[in-house]
Amino acid sequence: MDYKDYKLLKIKIDQFVAFVTIDNPPMNLLNFELFGELYKFLTDAESDEDIKVIVFDSADPDFFISHFDVSHIIDSSFFPEKMPPRPTEPSFFKSLMMRYRSFPKVTIVKIEGIVGGGGSEIILGFDMRFGSKEKAYFYQPEGIFGIIPGGGGTQYLTRLMGRARALETILGCKRFNADLAEQYGWINRAIPQAEITGFVNDLANRIALIPSKNIGFLKQAVVAAEDLSISEGLIEEDHLFNRSIRLPESRRIMKEYINKGCQTREVEIDSKKQIEKLMKIIKNIH
Amino acid sequence: MDYKDYKLLKIKIDQFVAFVTIDNPPMNLLNFELFGELYKFLTDAESDEDIKVIVFDSADPDFFISHFDVSHIIDSSFFPEKMPPRPTEPSFFKSLMMRYRSFPKVTIVKIEGIVGGGGSEIILGFDMRFGSKEKAYFYQPEGIFGIIPGGGGTQYLTRLMGRARALETILGCKRFNADLAEQYGWINRAIPQAEITGFVNDLANRIALIPSKNIGFLKQAVVAAEDLSISEGLIEEDHLFNRSIRLPESRRIMKEYINKGCQTREVEIDSKKQIEKLMKIIKNIH
Amino acid sequence: MDYKDYKLLKIKIDQFVAFVTIDNPPMNLLNFELFGELYKFLTDAESDEDIKVIVFDSADPDFFISHFDVSHIIDSSFFPEKMPPRPTEPSFFKSLMMRYRSFPKVTIVKIEGIVGGGGSEIILGFDMRFGSKEKAYFYQPEGIFGIIPGGGGTQYLTRLMGRARALETILGCKRFNADLAEQYGWINRAIPQAEITGFVNDLANRIALIPSKNIGFLKQAVVAAEDLSISEGLIEEDHLFNRSIRLPESRRIMKEYINKGCQTREVEIDSKKQIEKLMKIIKNIH
Repeated sequence: MDYKDYKLLKIKIDQFVAFVTIDNPPMNLLNFELFGELYKFLTDAESDEDIKVIVFDSADPDFFISHFDVSHIIDSSFFPEKMPPRPTEPSFFKSLMMRYRSFPKVTIVKIEGIVGGGGSEIILGFDMRFGSKEKAYFYQPEGIFGIIPGGGGTQYLTRLMGRARALETILGCKRFNADLAEQYGWINRAIPQAEITGFVNDLANRIALIPSKNIGFLKQAVVAAEDLSISEGLIEEDHLFNRSIRLPESRRIMKEYINKGCQTREVEIDSKKQIEKLMKIIKNIH
Repeated sequence: MDYKDYKLLKIKIDQFVAFVTIDNPPMNLLNFELFGELYKFLTDAESDEDIKVIVFDSADPDFFISHFDVSHIIDSSFFPEKMPPRPTEPSFFKSLMMRYRSFPKVTIVKIEGIVGGGGSEIILGFDMRFGSKEKAYFYQPEGIFGIIPGGGGTQYLTRLMGRARALETILGCKRFNADLAEQYGWINRAIPQAEITGFVNDLANRIALIPSKNIGFLKQAVVAAEDLSISEGLIEEDHLFNRSIRLPESRRIMKEYINKGCQTREVEIDSKKQIEKLMKIIKNIH
Repeated sequence: MDYKDYKLLKIKIDQFVAFVTIDNPPMNLLNFELFGELYKFLTDAESDEDIKVIVFDSADPDFFISHFDVSHIIDSSFFPEKMPPRPTEPSFFKSLMMRYRSFPKVTIVKIEGIVGGGGSEIILGFDMRFGSKEKAYFYQPEGIFGIIPGGGGTQYLTRLMGRARALETILGCKRFNADLAEQYGWINRAIPQAEITGFVNDLANRIALIPSKNIGFLKQAVVAAEDLSISEGLIEEDHLFNRSIRLPESRRIMKEYINKGCQTREVEIDSKKQIEKLMKIIKNIH
């Protein structure tokens, strides 16, 4: 797949990692066109065996995704004035992010600018978020506009930071810098701007060493932990574990690890040595 | 409403914010009288359109609320010696705090002293908690008295900090300063004593800009996130979003924002400029 | 009970605290023998009235528990090649940790070395975890071996740190030092190596002051918070509270506290004074 027929996403694939740059001038607003490309990319990537990990960033030096276009919300051709009945399934927007949550590829977001409203809800739907200490800012301004976040923000934030901090975030409508976003759990970590690209690329490359099927199992197990009770989740994990240890590729990795004498004090005391041995084993198997 | 018929709460309303000072000498013990006033205030405030946000603090320089009066627990006129049957609904205490959790006003607690036991459970039932770095201390001493927290502490703390830290808190019975309480999620944030009043008042005033009905929607969405599965919660959020975007006041704010040219790179890159524009729009509408 | 018939666990009891040192050379691998002793100890300790709190540490200066023996996973006498049907209850490993979670004794882990894979899942099943700032390292390497954590790791970590950080942990497979493990909630706290033994022993001794039955009630309440909805959990807490305040020993502690004039501003303003008074009351009662 060459990913040439995208207008707002620049896509490049290198060693099982897709680098996707969002470029929707003048301010990376989230509109239906950008949304459509995120949908199309999900479908394309799903069946692309050359992709294990996806790294999203922005072409705009100041905005990651500014927010959902406010003019759409007051446009009755998109949102008719008549109140619709209570929905029976999540909206198109949310369903897309729920599919990104469970599809068997890993999504990582590198945030080096302002991300607000529906843009924040996009990144909350992805798997991991890293923000530049100097340049990233996060806010959910919907409250002060008289509306509520409609792309999952209230649900994702409450799960990440608890009720009190989620209420502070969506009622206070203030911008959080990356350090505060890290403290509250909005992002995985705040990383100095000079290091963030190296950090994210290293993480992506490392994850790309994992056998494809096992990436799917790992994601399924974490989704189960969010969706099920502890006892049901433990059973689901058992079942996925049973499947993973019977993958031929996994068995070969484990056998080589034992045969090469890696399960020893000397190798395992040193994390660098251990990972080098593992990388060599994996590369020989492929 | 003039709120003159309260003995233990001093209540003052200013621009949609109610300032409530707890004053129950000699040490702000939580007794049935104080509890009765917190119940009465919930009912009064619920129907008072002049209140959007409530800020609680204490008249005692050393204690926020010391704890529930131990002499009540061993008084058989309050707690008969005979073990009651398993309850089928939460106690009066907990039901009150659950009503504060879901009623359509925002509660913020400013803690500048010791808060323990049932007092801690009161603040855990409110929406947000900010503690003075120098003066606030938090503890659940019930364990060492041979009893368990009975006002929701075990449930709220486990949700906020996870099983391991909740167990450390309620089994260790130690006092946490504000920094540790922040780290464990007991409070939103630890704020230097010199700044805490300004911080809390600023947050309260900012939230008071939000249309009343929308405050209710935002709180409902977060309560849904605590009570429902992810997929059910996302649907509830959709429904509340659909209602919020059809509020006449919200539509006017959004239209003005677009018409005044605020959805631009120049305005939104600067958080101060953006909030000033929004405040002007909101004040013109009222 | 003298606990002499253990090979891999060194067990010593002092004032209601059991100190259990794991000693399985050459690198504290988690194998079936060690697992068997952890099972046997659960059963022995359960009925031992001399134990209220259990502190686990390691005899190995570099490893707490290295991980589950990889050679077992590829051994078809342990894990047959044929894929088993979907399980209907958690595996033996997980059931053991779930019993440690709910049994009426408190488990505390002091980690002063590397802990990985199944070893990490053992500590995640215990009640509290403290790690040495200088010496503790944590990792879940399963992903890179082509398998998933099978001892509850995906479920426990997601509950402790949320989806995004759990995914980073189990997909990135990197070693976390104690500071990062603390930040992500993997452990309760990172403690300087020079202080960790004092800290853990002090906490254990303090918890050992709590009446045995009440330790059980406190743990049950927190387990309820993990397993039930908020409203069901609050009712369970009510029921346990009602039981706890009717324990004869608890009533005596509370009566003495009131009779000795401890519920006063002067005593309670000073946490040291308050705990000394309580300790004296408790020791007189026994």
